[in-house]
Amino acid sequence: MTVRDNSIEPSQKRKKLQKIGVFTSGGDAPGMNAAVRAVTRAALANKLKVVGIRRGYQGMIEGDFIPLKSNDVSGILQLGGTMLKTARSAEFRTPEGREKAYKQLKKAEIDAVVVIGGDGSFTGALVMSQEYDFPFIGIPGTIDNDIYGTDYTIGYDTALNTVVQAVDKIKDTARSHGRIFFVEVMGREAGLLALNSGIACGAEVILIPEAKGDHDQLNKFLEKGYKSKETSGIIMVAEGDEAGGAIQIAERVRKEHPDLDVRVSILGHIQRGGSPTAKDRVNATKMGVAAVDALLDDQKSIMIGLDNEKIVHVPFNKAVKLNHSIDTNLMDIQKLLNT
Amino acid sequence: MTVRDNSIEPSQKRKKLQKIGVFTSGGDAPGMNAAVRAVTRAALANKLKVVGIRRGYQGMIEGDFIPLKSNDVSGILQLGGTMLKTARSAEFRTPEGREKAYKQLKKAEIDAVVVIGGDGSFTGALVMSQEYDFPFIGIPGTIDNDIYGTDYTIGYDTALNTVVQAVDKIKDTARSHGRIFFVEVMGREAGLLALNSGIACGAEVILIPEAKGDHDQLNKFLEKGYKSKETSGIIMVAEGDEAGGAIQIAERVRKEHPDLDVRVSILGHIQRGGSPTAKDRVNATKMGVAAVDALLDDQKSIMIGLDNEKIVHVPFNKAVKLNHSIDTNLMDIQKLLNT
Amino acid sequence: MTVRDNSIEPSQKRKKLQKIGVFTSGGDAPGMNAAVRAVTRAALANKLKVVGIRRGYQGMIEGDFIPLKSNDVSGILQLGGTMLKTARSAEFRTPEGREKAYKQLKKAEIDAVVVIGGDGSFTGALVMSQEYDFPFIGIPGTIDNDIYGTDYTIGYDTALNTVVQAVDKIKDTARSHGRIFFVEVMGREAGLLALNSGIACGAEVILIPEAKGDHDQLNKFLEKGYKSKETSGIIMVAEGDEAGGAIQIAERVRKEHPDLDVRVSILGHIQRGGSPTAKDRVNATKMGVAAVDALLDDQKSIMIGLDNEKIVHVPFNKAVKLNHSIDTNLMDIQKLLNT
Amino acid sequence: MTVRDNSIEPSQKRKKLQKIGVFTSGGDAPGMNAAVRAVTRAALANKLKVVGIRRGYQGMIEGDFIPLKSNDVSGILQLGGTMLKTARSAEFRTPEGREKAYKQLKKAEIDAVVVIGGDGSFTGALVMSQEYDFPFIGIPGTIDNDIYGTDYTIGYDTALNTVVQAVDKIKDTARSHGRIFFVEVMGREAGLLALNSGIACGAEVILIPEAKGDHDQLNKFLEKGYKSKETSGIIMVAEGDEAGGAIQIAERVRKEHPDLDVRVSILGHIQRGGSPTAKDRVNATKMGVAAVDALLDDQKSIMIGLDNEKIVHVPFNKAVKLNHSIDTNLMDIQKLLNT
Repeated sequence: MTVRDNSIEPSQKRKKLQKIGVFTSGGDAPGMNAAVRAVTRAALANKLKVVGIRRGYQGMIEGDFIPLKSNDVSGILQLGGTMLKTARSAEFRTPEGREKAYKQLKKAEIDAVVVIGGDGSFTGALVMSQEYDFPFIGIPGTIDNDIYGTDYTIGYDTALNTVVQAVDKIKDTARSHGRIFFVEVMGREAGLLALNSGIACGAEVILIPEAKGDHDQLNKFLEKGYKSKETSGIIMVAEGDEAGGAIQIAERVRKEHPDLDVRVSILGHIQRGGSPTAKDRVNATKMGVAAVDALLDDQKSIMIGLDNEKIVHVPFNKAVKLNHSIDTNLMDIQKLLNT
Repeated sequence: MTVRDNSIEPSQKRKKLQKIGVFTSGGDAPGMNAAVRAVTRAALANKLKVVGIRRGYQGMIEGDFIPLKSNDVSGILQLGGTMLKTARSAEFRTPEGREKAYKQLKKAEIDAVVVIGGDGSFTGALVMSQEYDFPFIGIPGTIDNDIYGTDYTIGYDTALNTVVQAVDKIKDTARSHGRIFFVEVMGREAGLLALNSGIACGAEVILIPEAKGDHDQLNKFLEKGYKSKETSGIIMVAEGDEAGGAIQIAERVRKEHPDLDVRVSILGHIQRGGSPTAKDRVNATKMGVAAVDALLDDQKSIMIGLDNEKIVHVPFNKAVKLNHSIDTNLMDIQKLLNT
Repeated sequence: MTVRDNSIEPSQKRKKLQKIGVFTSGGDAPGMNAAVRAVTRAALANKLKVVGIRRGYQGMIEGDFIPLKSNDVSGILQLGGTMLKTARSAEFRTPEGREKAYKQLKKAEIDAVVVIGGDGSFTGALVMSQEYDFPFIGIPGTIDNDIYGTDYTIGYDTALNTVVQAVDKIKDTARSHGRIFFVEVMGREAGLLALNSGIACGAEVILIPEAKGDHDQLNKFLEKGYKSKETSGIIMVAEGDEAGGAIQIAERVRKEHPDLDVRVSILGHIQRGGSPTAKDRVNATKMGVAAVDALLDDQKSIMIGLDNEKIVHVPFNKAVKLNHSIDTNLMDIQKLLNT
Repeated sequence: MTVRDNSIEPSQKRKKLQKIGVFTSGGDAPGMNAAVRAVTRAALANKLKVVGIRRGYQGMIEGDFIPLKSNDVSGILQLGGTMLKTARSAEFRTPEGREKAYKQLKKAEIDAVVVIGGDGSFTGALVMSQEYDFPFIGIPGTIDNDIYGTDYTIGYDTALNTVVQAVDKIKDTARSHGRIFFVEVMGREAGLLALNSGIACGAEVILIPEAKGDHDQLNKFLEKGYKSKETSGIIMVAEGDEAGGAIQIAERVRKEHPDLDVRVSILGHIQRGGSPTAKDRVNATKMGVAAVDALLDDQKSIMIGLDNEKIVHVPFNKAVKLNHSIDTNLMDIQKLLNT
């Protein structure tokens, strides 16, 4: 992938692509703003006009558009959230909704759109693209890092570090009191965040949907716990664990081990926000530029991905939700170091 | 208050005070380690021996003592939690428990003790001091900042900043999605933390036990909310609010306003941990030195307090739990800026 | 000080005060944005119009004005720097410059101005106020905390915490290598920041303009240093120390003690930026509201100050640069704990 | 690579490997403690004894050894620096020094050693390994990320984020004052840190040793700068840039453009410290376990590396200093977005 040389733009392509839209969709993720900035500036540098579509597909339906100049995306690189806002849209799931959306794009003379979001957002783009022959390019933005075809999604690295910093704090108090904390982190279907933050924080036990037998490890840890007045422990729980969330598991443990001082902490929405890490900013920037490059190269219905730090193109119908097969080496390591 | 000149120590006092104990008690608070360090080093500089009593009054009963040299408190100034651990002790509430504790202190030849904790810890010290004529000096350490006689307790400033940083993150996602968040912070009986963090984060509404009519403000805000698709809002809730915690209030709001996108975040135990702020470190250090100074001055049964940045001595029986009368000016300001 | 009841505004005052300006001047300080927000919203709530004057007095001379509505100051509370920018203006020091400035204010129908800055900014306001009978209210915003009449200036608490976090990092590497670091912090004429950060970080020596004999302490520490291969140390240096900055002092030490591994770190401009602490946000907000209140109360030529957490009014000609007499107790404590 | 099953350890290998040493060498890097912990716990779990060698090769020569149990490495995962300290040793470069070191290892019955450091540390290990047939396994720990054969070295991710957070603060003040900042970051021979932090912070220009023509970009930016009173800019400078460091370049610019407000910030040693990021903790842990695994597999003179997240073994004589050929795509992107 190369950055386009402005001077030798083929005249024919120019006619087709003059104005692009960009929007964020689904759950917000730190680094989305960096991607919006990169898309905008890369497009402007290639003499395209840029329109920001606010509030995802719902804003597209309503024509909630704002023109974007270089200055409009100045000073947003380091901000969490998304300046374009995001929303879910039931209406877009209907043919009528998509027709309205298409008409709004046409009316605004938008020739192509970059969508920053998760697999659901790409599915929407694919459907509309097929119905109206309209070019969409996707950028994966979700803290869950659960999309097939890319090693990386925008926001995951920040969310992981946010979790780690929160658990560091909880560990201070756990150790001071000899308490056992069940810390619940995001991951309805996957334990990626729980597993990696658990390793990074030295969690005594990690409970994730992918693992069999992790509750045996919990029981073993708790049995040992009885023996010492000074036991403290961090048990990381992915919200989608088969035994329920942290509250349910803690409740069971309290019943079985009434002597232990058991607490629960659900990290919740703080995991979504915050200033993005260096990695999330750099990768969001690379992907934003690559998305514009793909449009200039006449691509459509693909997601920009990263494969071993290199840009790749993944067809939308392959960029589906993926439960990364969990790194069993990491799980072995966790047990090895905490036995 | 002056720092003692080592060279002219009266020989008579020396006989009485040769070895002191120090411990932390009640909920842990960031800065307790800084206070332990200051007590230890100030005592050593005054040629006293120092013993760390682990796990609060329970450790005192069990004789869980460790000698503390200068190096033992090196590198702890910036750490959250307490290296001496802390615990609650039902046994210490009984005369038998206190007798055991006293015997352990005598056996270890400890002449006086510095206790770092909240009002409950001071009450324990006062009772034992009266029963056995044993000198205790208190240092207020609790993130609640709810002790009569001192402007400041160790840990409050750190906890406040931790809340503010967490709410900043939540605000990123609230604004991106147009959501209303009910954020619950510590404060079972007092709204100090909720009020100040609410001002610092620009919360739309603040619900605290001390305020009448704050739910009217909430209702007014929610009515306005209906009008705009872009409403987002942060509602700070002190856990002791008369309408219940954030979960209960959010549930009611969801029923009354089914169109709003309402979320809850309970910050919980992350509020206790973390590296202490500059203020918590400096004040804990000042108070630690002042506590040793008070012992050298033959004081007992007092808490070291800060009144307008100056060290003051507060008798234990006055250093009771205080619900700071809430700063009504701050509440007026909050309404003024968010109407 | 009370917040104004909008409903009973005396009609006479209304005529005089309809539109106010607000600007930031001198060095930027974290929390200035919070003050701009509070001034703007408090004025709007009192039915005043608000104009932001960009780039300090220079922008005033050039008529670089922007209207401020509630939304314009949304989302700035947590940002460092100043959205109104700041600048120095040689032209404003001339009568001609001030005449231009006055004419611009009149042309824009601005009736009064709130200036957020340091003592130099207040002097400028006082001079212009006397020449043209124009009301200015000041808010102290400078990380140096060096203004007579107020315990607190906006930005100092954030700068102190920024220094502490940077020194914590330097200490990691100092201890790992057994190095001695000279860390230079801001404070051309005063050692407030160096002294407090030094206490908060457990610095071995603190060198500040106000102290006599602190270099003896340095020499004593360095002599001890020879004895151990593991010595590491943090020497905090206020940039205005009489022996020169950190570079000069380190150079001398290297000559006298060639065996020691001596390094220098000049923290520089990172001390000015960053998201403001809770304290800086809350106090900036209180002061911003108080400034508008003072204007509504027909005050002029005063700075809003804080005296033991309470709002006070300080005449401009008293709000001069102050070298807080340094807290000798803190200096004694530092020596006591590091000997 | 698999984690060893303790139960089927071949008896023959057991005889050879009973006690291992671990040490850190060269510049400290955040995450070294996590690696020490992982090596220690993985070895203990495999029934090996573990000895910490303090102060690098110098401590090896002096026999500065401490036994390491599981508890000794508890609570260090999140700390910057290295608990084993590090040092440079001229003596180890002599045959006599290495002989002393070898005798100390033999005397302490250490059978193999894990060295955490940079390419220079591996060279030392290789020489000694060849002279005395002694097994060393290396783990790459250096914030420079400049070792051939591995995508990743411990500490780089933390250093990059530290730089980004510092530049964010500098940008606050740069924008408030309309200033141009030359920010110098580590990288004597390589611009990796400058390039990535520059992208992450939206730097206007990036000056690195690898780039030709980057000073043209600087000049172009400065010419534009004349036109606007509001120009601010961040110029990232790798310390090894061919035009000198930030101070020299800024001096030249001040002469050529006396109207511009030019400042310099040298980030210096804060780049080395601080609590490691999630990535540095997880990878250090993986590598520490892999190092013990390699020893158990009878390996020697190899560095553990990461290739696309997978563990690889790199012979010491290949693990030399590498100037990663700079990512020209990133450089193109930077120019594209800032023109």
